[in-house]
Amino acid sequence: MNLLDPLFGWDVTDKIFSDAVRVQRMLDFEAALARAEAKQSVVPNDVAAPIRHQCQVDLFDLSALGQEAASAGNLAIPLVKELTHLVAQDHPKAARYVHWGATSQDVIDTGLVLQLRDALAAIEGDLRRLCETLAQLADEHRATPLPARTWMQQAVPTVFGLKIAGWLDALTRHLSRLQDVRNRVLVIQFGGAAGTLASLGTDGLKVAQELARELNLGLPEVPWHSHRDRVVEVGTTLALLVGTLGKIARDISLQSQTEIAEVFEPAGEGRGGSSTMPHKRNPVACAVVLSAADRVPALACNLLSAMPQEHERGLGGWHAEWESLPELIRLSGGTLHHVVDMMAGLEVDTVRMRQNVDVTQGLLFAEAVTMALGKQIGKPAAHQLVEEICRIAIARKKPLREMLAANSEIMSNLSSAELDRLFDPLSYIGVAGKFIDRAIEASKSEQQ
Amino acid sequence: MNLLDPLFGWDVTDKIFSDAVRVQRMLDFEAALARAEAKQSVVPNDVAAPIRHQCQVDLFDLSALGQEAASAGNLAIPLVKELTHLVAQDHPKAARYVHWGATSQDVIDTGLVLQLRDALAAIEGDLRRLCETLAQLADEHRATPLPARTWMQQAVPTVFGLKIAGWLDALTRHLSRLQDVRNRVLVIQFGGAAGTLASLGTDGLKVAQELARELNLGLPEVPWHSHRDRVVEVGTTLALLVGTLGKIARDISLQSQTEIAEVFEPAGEGRGGSSTMPHKRNPVACAVVLSAADRVPALACNLLSAMPQEHERGLGGWHAEWESLPELIRLSGGTLHHVVDMMAGLEVDTVRMRQNVDVTQGLLFAEAVTMALGKQIGKPAAHQLVEEICRIAIARKKPLREMLAANSEIMSNLSSAELDRLFDPLSYIGVAGKFIDRAIEASKSEQQ
Amino acid sequence: MNLLDPLFGWDVTDKIFSDAVRVQRMLDFEAALARAEAKQSVVPNDVAAPIRHQCQVDLFDLSALGQEAASAGNLAIPLVKELTHLVAQDHPKAARYVHWGATSQDVIDTGLVLQLRDALAAIEGDLRRLCETLAQLADEHRATPLPARTWMQQAVPTVFGLKIAGWLDALTRHLSRLQDVRNRVLVIQFGGAAGTLASLGTDGLKVAQELARELNLGLPEVPWHSHRDRVVEVGTTLALLVGTLGKIARDISLQSQTEIAEVFEPAGEGRGGSSTMPHKRNPVACAVVLSAADRVPALACNLLSAMPQEHERGLGGWHAEWESLPELIRLSGGTLHHVVDMMAGLEVDTVRMRQNVDVTQGLLFAEAVTMALGKQIGKPAAHQLVEEICRIAIARKKPLREMLAANSEIMSNLSSAELDRLFDPLSYIGVAGKFIDRAIEASKSEQQ
Amino acid sequence: MNLLDPLFGWDVTDKIFSDAVRVQRMLDFEAALARAEAKQSVVPNDVAAPIRHQCQVDLFDLSALGQEAASAGNLAIPLVKELTHLVAQDHPKAARYVHWGATSQDVIDTGLVLQLRDALAAIEGDLRRLCETLAQLADEHRATPLPARTWMQQAVPTVFGLKIAGWLDALTRHLSRLQDVRNRVLVIQFGGAAGTLASLGTDGLKVAQELARELNLGLPEVPWHSHRDRVVEVGTTLALLVGTLGKIARDISLQSQTEIAEVFEPAGEGRGGSSTMPHKRNPVACAVVLSAADRVPALACNLLSAMPQEHERGLGGWHAEWESLPELIRLSGGTLHHVVDMMAGLEVDTVRMRQNVDVTQGLLFAEAVTMALGKQIGKPAAHQLVEEICRIAIARKKPLREMLAANSEIMSNLSSAELDRLFDPLSYIGVAGKFIDRAIEASKSEQQ
Repeated sequence: MNLLDPLFGWDVTDKIFSDAVRVQRMLDFEAALARAEAKQSVVPNDVAAPIRHQCQVDLFDLSALGQEAASAGNLAIPLVKELTHLVAQDHPKAARYVHWGATSQDVIDTGLVLQLRDALAAIEGDLRRLCETLAQLADEHRATPLPARTWMQQAVPTVFGLKIAGWLDALTRHLSRLQDVRNRVLVIQFGGAAGTLASLGTDGLKVAQELARELNLGLPEVPWHSHRDRVVEVGTTLALLVGTLGKIARDISLQSQTEIAEVFEPAGEGRGGSSTMPHKRNPVACAVVLSAADRVPALACNLLSAMPQEHERGLGGWHAEWESLPELIRLSGGTLHHVVDMMAGLEVDTVRMRQNVDVTQGLLFAEAVTMALGKQIGKPAAHQLVEEICRIAIARKKPLREMLAANSEIMSNLSSAELDRLFDPLSYIGVAGKFIDRAIEASKSEQQ
Repeated sequence: MNLLDPLFGWDVTDKIFSDAVRVQRMLDFEAALARAEAKQSVVPNDVAAPIRHQCQVDLFDLSALGQEAASAGNLAIPLVKELTHLVAQDHPKAARYVHWGATSQDVIDTGLVLQLRDALAAIEGDLRRLCETLAQLADEHRATPLPARTWMQQAVPTVFGLKIAGWLDALTRHLSRLQDVRNRVLVIQFGGAAGTLASLGTDGLKVAQELARELNLGLPEVPWHSHRDRVVEVGTTLALLVGTLGKIARDISLQSQTEIAEVFEPAGEGRGGSSTMPHKRNPVACAVVLSAADRVPALACNLLSAMPQEHERGLGGWHAEWESLPELIRLSGGTLHHVVDMMAGLEVDTVRMRQNVDVTQGLLFAEAVTMALGKQIGKPAAHQLVEEICRIAIARKKPLREMLAANSEIMSNLSSAELDRLFDPLSYIGVAGKFIDRAIEASKSEQQ
Repeated sequence: MNLLDPLFGWDVTDKIFSDAVRVQRMLDFEAALARAEAKQSVVPNDVAAPIRHQCQVDLFDLSALGQEAASAGNLAIPLVKELTHLVAQDHPKAARYVHWGATSQDVIDTGLVLQLRDALAAIEGDLRRLCETLAQLADEHRATPLPARTWMQQAVPTVFGLKIAGWLDALTRHLSRLQDVRNRVLVIQFGGAAGTLASLGTDGLKVAQELARELNLGLPEVPWHSHRDRVVEVGTTLALLVGTLGKIARDISLQSQTEIAEVFEPAGEGRGGSSTMPHKRNPVACAVVLSAADRVPALACNLLSAMPQEHERGLGGWHAEWESLPELIRLSGGTLHHVVDMMAGLEVDTVRMRQNVDVTQGLLFAEAVTMALGKQIGKPAAHQLVEEICRIAIARKKPLREMLAANSEIMSNLSSAELDRLFDPLSYIGVAGKFIDRAIEASKSEQQ
Repeated sequence: MNLLDPLFGWDVTDKIFSDAVRVQRMLDFEAALARAEAKQSVVPNDVAAPIRHQCQVDLFDLSALGQEAASAGNLAIPLVKELTHLVAQDHPKAARYVHWGATSQDVIDTGLVLQLRDALAAIEGDLRRLCETLAQLADEHRATPLPARTWMQQAVPTVFGLKIAGWLDALTRHLSRLQDVRNRVLVIQFGGAAGTLASLGTDGLKVAQELARELNLGLPEVPWHSHRDRVVEVGTTLALLVGTLGKIARDISLQSQTEIAEVFEPAGEGRGGSSTMPHKRNPVACAVVLSAADRVPALACNLLSAMPQEHERGLGGWHAEWESLPELIRLSGGTLHHVVDMMAGLEVDTVRMRQNVDVTQGLLFAEAVTMALGKQIGKPAAHQLVEEICRIAIARKKPLREMLAANSEIMSNLSSAELDRLFDPLSYIGVAGKFIDRAIEASKSEQQ
């Protein structure tokens, strides 16, 4: 564990990408390979068990592996060497068939795919939980008015439920993307030294099929040693997800400002406090999410720019993935988990939201008044008149409602009751409710 | 047109993202909106035609629009103003209904989606052509041996057809990704000032449905003004494609080196020449593709990092897309087209490929000899013996075949004819042929 | 001009990097080269004038150059060809000495350096103007209290002048960085085909010296065709500047929020308006600056990642710079100019700033009260007592001042007058004034 | 230690940025602060020693700190809490003055600056060693001919010493940049809660001065909590350095290709080997360096894009630096160290370089022949004649020298001895020697 893992990561995905699990997944490949080859009679039937027996990370000195990898250029070479050595102690014959026909990249890449399978499942689980929470919140706040803000300026009224529905809707699309990417990436890597499986003669394809079956992964059309679109797509897909999570955190952090105070991250002992300022409650989750929303795009960029890998195995491009992709997943998992927690305990101040609607003293309703008045005197005349009264209200710092009431042309066309209705924010939210329904419905469909 | 467009772009996608077409697509939205609203009786029936009549980019002064956009902060405000002005000249009544109920972002985003539809179709067309060319080339070169190279070092023999099959297979996946992204992105943007469509009262949803029908686009669950995952995914998907194209160009450029000389970009008058060096033939297409493979990831990064947009309309994040996404598409289209052209006329020197197999004087066949010998004397003994002979061959700079022939243990186990066969590269390509078949087959399936 | 240039660019830097000026700077190289070679008697004395005579961009068809560059792979080849053709019409002999001894990259890179010289001078000029404006503003607002905000939460009081001094101080460092980078980048590129200047025999160095003198540029130790750190450093240096400008825009945009309303971008006809919402005033400059603060880092990234260029001239990496660096400069120039304009006309609402100090009903002064009380009863006791009273004030939504006054222990230690002083924000701004002085002083020093 | 640290990192910089040292540097700040405040009589004189006594990382539970940081949002809060607790055990009075007047960011940022000081010194030391090695190598190979390659095609002859001089020259500039950045970044961070140092009343500046003196760091004009250009510049400067190191590795990796074989990374037990292919020698150092040259630009990008931090302390932007900058330094240190090692033991095959000059059968000398012939018959006639003969040589796959000798016009103008001289690569390297001298000289100057 590193010092900042608890802050930036999520223990579930952190563990999947720990050093130990990374090595274990490589050993899982070796065990499965031996078994597949034995089943297909490519190696003697009795060598699979002894090999599998040693495929346990606890038997290996990770620190020594790391040191040797620095010379060898990859982890697989010292790992296979050490595995062979371990197997040989009890079963010299079996040792001859360790890693049979495979190349370093076969074990490293397939090990990675096994990690990706677990990580994508964990992330998808969390994402589903988040969608459920948001669907409930959106429904709950379908009649909670607050100001919509565009260009960081108050615009017209909206409801908090629609804001949440927007978050939910984007996250639903990410669920769908995760499914697409899983269909493409969960395949074995198995091609031998150069992608021909020549070392297995004509048996290559049937071993590959058996190996895929053993690992419950797909069989790709061809080995993909230097074609990295599959794994990089995991990166870009999670980066898109983090972009949406960043948007949610951006909204929450803006709404949490002292002067706006509409929502708050869940409180907790020692959470977001300040040693000297008793009133401070720092939005820690938002900080973490926004930091990831800055970092993850760059990690995706570097996976993308490493794609033009040379010939049958890249020099540098492949190596660039070894830490960048795990780091990207660590930050994605951590970010998502922070948002799940934040949303589960989000504090919403609906009274303050309503008060914020009135910060402009009614200017937010100018458009509504114009539309109603237009039905009486035509839209252009209505627009001109309301605009003029707005200008007066702004100059005198008076409520728009009051200035309208003082105008005879207004009052001869709109009753006081009508004006009251027009200044009710819930009378000017259009089809927000229908949009909320649609978002909830679509999310439920996607999750089935 | 800018000076370097012919080099870096592709006229088809360049045109789709030209200033004029950008504005025309925005006008297409306005025309469709008027018609949809008339059909749904939200505006008088007779205003749609006069509005549509003025929705032609030729009637607008683009330079003036650009100048006004600098103050207004977006193109839609001056465009709607000018459109209203044009409509008013003949039909004052119709002018009152221009842009009815919509917001600037509705027209800008939907206009963008219309451009994306055309661009994705053009790119997909080119990609299909490329897949066809590569499928043919892969088939043609299924028995063309050349050295496989890993870590930029010769490894074992392979066939050129398998290299091509790898390219083809990745491109086939990109075809599938383009389909996925199209399903998500080809939807209208229509939410009014704050995403509630309040300005249309309770008619918002039915106008939206009609508008989607008019434009032959999908209807999203909710407006997505500040949720940019749809358009950003176009960027990441094309960036993945460019990564693969970069990999292809990397391979070609390495194979085109003077000392390797296996393939060449198509020749042409004035193409890749040098004013002073008559023998130079610069791989211009590779240079362009590799430059895009560096630039496009950064553009994707900046779209991703712009995703956390504020509230109901972002400040800065949205604006960051306006040039970055068109630029990303320009480079993607240009890159793809360069590769299409390059592959259509690729010169392949199969003789040189075969010669390059022999650059190591037979060391490429050490693994093959070991496998054959192993059947006689056991693999470990075989490996040890062959390794020793390799060392001698390297030290004396002699062909491995010759050194093997001089060794009595070798010759008592392998006949001269067997040795000949072992040094035939086509005898050591495993299941390359099957892999090629699989890649071609999968590509054909995808294209149906 | 492109449609969005007026919004995102600055006409001064846009012009320096226009297609026409790009070509003119290449022609300036050719003219200077001919003259330098004539002076050094490497070419006949009478050929320089006829060559220089044709080195005018108006004589060239830019569109045709662009088309030919697509085949040739760079602009220099068709440009030199066409220049030679033009010179030959009147002076066949002189035509033989056009581009004598130079390579394409010599003219392209040196042309770029000439553009960079102009652009850096323009940017530095604007930056100096901005520093002057800010120095004045900082001084003016040295006693304008407003809430300091950390983690987007109100923290303690500060003065607006200190906020500005922070901006100024960072910009002063950028002035210093621009000077450093200028010292490194303003050198000629001149190495011939491979950096040896072999085509000039033993005269290479003296021609290079003369050429540098002609162009008033430095002479590098060795040609730097594939060493791009000089030009990339221009990119990273401007990206740092844009980062600071983004920080300024971030602050302004947050302070401009409807609910905070402390500062506003300058108003102007048609500036930041909305067609339907009369109260909207969108911070257009902030939007542009923040969009650039997202885009420019990615452009810097792509220049950096293009640095590992092959051998004596890169394939792809060099080409990646041709549009990325101009684009980076365009956005940097545009961003800076927007900030210059914004600051020159910034509207500051000092009354509102003071009101915002009171949004927490006095909690901002808790630390000040604790320090004063601590002198009487010890800091720990003071801290405990004040914290307790803060909690009560928050729970009851009462002013802290009122709750303190109601506490006998407080009132027996602090007089009412002392309390009044403690709740004066200007009594709790530490050495803000000295910091402001230091920032102003340092900026003035740097500018001398 | 993480599994891949030995491969990608460098133990010296890895240690400086280890968790333990990170915390120790924060404790160094606290110790120095107490002492500075005691010296300036801001805190009692006898509290400094007891505080300093506990400022040892061994006394702290890093894992617990990490866990608490996840709630608190930063490391400083739990660290100060625990330090206070430790001090209180023996000296309750001193405990009251721990962290006096400082804010979390003061300790975190100053701690970082202390780490940066050590890291920059270590990196500069390695860089100097590299420059010395390269200066020697450049001198040694001033007469070692090999083909210059542009666009990855052989162009004309050059010498290996000039290639090295190009590397050296760029690295010399990086030495100068490191000095510039050190002058800007090595300053304390000290501003208290909001940058005013209000908690220290009017003593803030003198404490700051004393603190800077204690830590042997500079005193900035104003606190720079949300102005990150200083630390980000460390990132961009190292990214530029890594770009150059990537260029060196690109060259070496291309020259190491089996078909070119001019240079090799130093051999070593277990270094770059392959389990199945005895002839393989993978360029591991190049792989690592090239992977960093892909990753570091993205890390620089994300530091740059995190710069627009909010108000007096950022939300997310600051947090994004906490791992990105250490990671960037880890990769930079590792990369540099790999290159230092590689160059110290670089194997150079000068015979093969000379052979590679002849790969084109003399076409590399066409320009030289043209220049010589031109003195006799005029350059245009010479160019036309040589070009024609080149075409014949290429078509017939014959040596150019032989084809020239068969041409009577050539032979009546050039003697056989002259032709011999023209085909000597060292007769066509222009002022390469002078360039090498200049690069060596400049590097020595910089290092003094």
